[in-house]
Amino acid sequence: MSLDKATKLDSNDGLFAKRELFSLPEGIIYLNGNSLGPLPINVRHRLDSVLNEQWGKDLIGSWNKHEWIDLPRKVGEKIAPIIGATSGQVLCCDSVSLNLFKLLASCLQLRPNRKRILSQEDNFPTDLYAAQGLQQLLGSSNCQLEVVNSRELVSAVDDEVAVLMLSHVNFRDGAAHDIEYLTRLAHERGALVIWDLAHSAGILPLSLDEWNVDFAVGCGYKYLNGGPGAPSFLYINNRHHDQFVQPLQAWMGHKAPFNFDQEFVPAEGAGQFMTGTPPILSLAALDEALDVFADVDIQLLQEKHMLLSEYFLGMMEEYPELKDLELISPKNVNKRGAQLSFSHPEAYAICRAWAEAGVIADFRSPNLLRVGFSPLVLRFKELEMGVKALVEIMDGELFAEPRFQQRLKVT
Amino acid sequence: MSLDKATKLDSNDGLFAKRELFSLPEGIIYLNGNSLGPLPINVRHRLDSVLNEQWGKDLIGSWNKHEWIDLPRKVGEKIAPIIGATSGQVLCCDSVSLNLFKLLASCLQLRPNRKRILSQEDNFPTDLYAAQGLQQLLGSSNCQLEVVNSRELVSAVDDEVAVLMLSHVNFRDGAAHDIEYLTRLAHERGALVIWDLAHSAGILPLSLDEWNVDFAVGCGYKYLNGGPGAPSFLYINNRHHDQFVQPLQAWMGHKAPFNFDQEFVPAEGAGQFMTGTPPILSLAALDEALDVFADVDIQLLQEKHMLLSEYFLGMMEEYPELKDLELISPKNVNKRGAQLSFSHPEAYAICRAWAEAGVIADFRSPNLLRVGFSPLVLRFKELEMGVKALVEIMDGELFAEPRFQQRLKVT
Repeated sequence: MSLDKATKLDSNDGLFAKRELFSLPEGIIYLNGNSLGPLPINVRHRLDSVLNEQWGKDLIGSWNKHEWIDLPRKVGEKIAPIIGATSGQVLCCDSVSLNLFKLLASCLQLRPNRKRILSQEDNFPTDLYAAQGLQQLLGSSNCQLEVVNSRELVSAVDDEVAVLMLSHVNFRDGAAHDIEYLTRLAHERGALVIWDLAHSAGILPLSLDEWNVDFAVGCGYKYLNGGPGAPSFLYINNRHHDQFVQPLQAWMGHKAPFNFDQEFVPAEGAGQFMTGTPPILSLAALDEALDVFADVDIQLLQEKHMLLSEYFLGMMEEYPELKDLELISPKNVNKRGAQLSFSHPEAYAICRAWAEAGVIADFRSPNLLRVGFSPLVLRFKELEMGVKALVEIMDGELFAEPRFQQRLKVT
Repeated sequence: MSLDKATKLDSNDGLFAKRELFSLPEGIIYLNGNSLGPLPINVRHRLDSVLNEQWGKDLIGSWNKHEWIDLPRKVGEKIAPIIGATSGQVLCCDSVSLNLFKLLASCLQLRPNRKRILSQEDNFPTDLYAAQGLQQLLGSSNCQLEVVNSRELVSAVDDEVAVLMLSHVNFRDGAAHDIEYLTRLAHERGALVIWDLAHSAGILPLSLDEWNVDFAVGCGYKYLNGGPGAPSFLYINNRHHDQFVQPLQAWMGHKAPFNFDQEFVPAEGAGQFMTGTPPILSLAALDEALDVFADVDIQLLQEKHMLLSEYFLGMMEEYPELKDLELISPKNVNKRGAQLSFSHPEAYAICRAWAEAGVIADFRSPNLLRVGFSPLVLRFKELEMGVKALVEIMDGELFAEPRFQQRLKVT
């Protein structure tokens, strides 16, 4: 009966055909697009072309002829509509961690009388590390990271806070903040905001311009499917352009890199955030992967992953074998990203056993099973099969197998 | 007669066969391996495998199964023998500019009573920009870049200098510093050294350990042939391990990234210099490209590019048409890297015309023609043909062509 339901949901899925744009191995159910998006088929052709037609044939001339030099901006322009930004505000370069360092230092320039960076416990650690690195470099009399519980955020945004730095969707439990509300609140108290969209760009409708967001960063290799370690993106709201100079100064962020001037003069607008020579192979893969989004309504992506995760939860409730997997994500589908996290003392072993059955999810230390619902690639029928595989693991038979017992001991 | 000489030099070339490992288009003479090394043929297969067998099939599991997570160290270990370093001191990540920022800030920690960064005019600009960015962030009472003429360096290394930051081989004229001598001098005066090996790694014998160098950075996409924007490498001498914490803190530099701890604890040794998730496609290309060096004696590379550039100069002297191209590189072959630079008021137009004739060199603003002699790929016969093409351009016939006249006006 539930397979009938899955079939029906699949047949009503406006994104059903998108799956054909990705290369996924037979027999694998991939619930991990939130860690590493799958390979878009066209990326193969693109990399072939970059290697053989560009690097291999036109060599150094490719920087101009094949517009390698423009890729960080071009990729930024493709990401812009996905996050609700107009042209000229988004760039693609470096990693989330480095981009946060640049932005945090820039915020302290914009708020010279404030020194506090406010964030939350359980933000993705690298975000906090970026702030810790800056604090250590500048000294805590000039820069101080304060980390509070999510519930204390509203009261902690006081008039000493230079910048509120948060992840839109939490990597651990998938809980989503209200960007618009918190941005308005921060602004009312004179603070700036930096939003990390690693777990929301490409699955949640975003309106950074409309919400008046100051700065944002995000990830190329999760829901944007840009490949392992794809460069990160930055959003710099127009109104902050040319108001400061970011500290990781390098030739690609110079106003005229090929003049080889001795003094750094920042490029106008967002351009100064570029640093060294961009990794073209990785950047080209992301550029190509983004074309999948060209005709996709983000609203539809959100509707689908909401349906997927609700359907998954509904199925789980039908199986008493799964009752020990405790949902730690928000029950309200409107308050989470495209993932569900469950705690279980044997989460690691369960995750491994599930993978052996062909269902790829994530383990997050110490005890979380993290299940991602990438709306471009998943089908409802797969969830059906995935839950059944999980039931088989949890009903104890697999747990009783010697090799599984052994693995439990090892881990 | 000179073609006979070229043939003889080619037949005596112990590296002659290496050219077959690279994909170079028919009819192109590539004198630009110092800007972007050509495509090693095996990189195609490697990228195919990373896309199709790894990302495409094993998906997120590839981080462990295909050891993506170890690539920054693994690539570092392959670079180590090329620069005269023993194991555990070299890493591959980020760009030269960012790695310099990390190292400069680390040097200031190691020399807390000194604030000066000493470098030279006409160092590659991004190196100076990295220092300028740090100075701006810390304030000039804590960090001050001083830039002097090359001839003034020895006297400028005084007891206020925290770190001497220099390029081994100058990007503009190819002049090479004596690393061993300047490192000893800096140490005698209590300063540290950072050497930028962008234009020397892979063509000059380097003995960083033996020379007691503190830190170094270098480039993956020039003589190492790692592809456009390939990540940079860093060398951190063992004796400085665990003596400081570099400021661009991020999860891949954490002691235990997958514990997701809230506090940054640096990885031991060189590992803390890693930052965000590495761009695997670009890193894998470099990893593969480095295999070309596995059985190559660097001494042989040096001997060959010295022969190549001397042969090139010798040929030039035979043609009065080339007398206006003024050599600005050191005449002494032992005092330069694998490049020759010539000044000429029409250098840009000459470079373009040469390219149209199939000879790819570099123009560097305002008036330099830069000719690179990558010893792994070049043959003496090609130099013969390249010089003849240059003579045809310079003898005035090409200059008289209307399309060339027009280009001269445009540029």
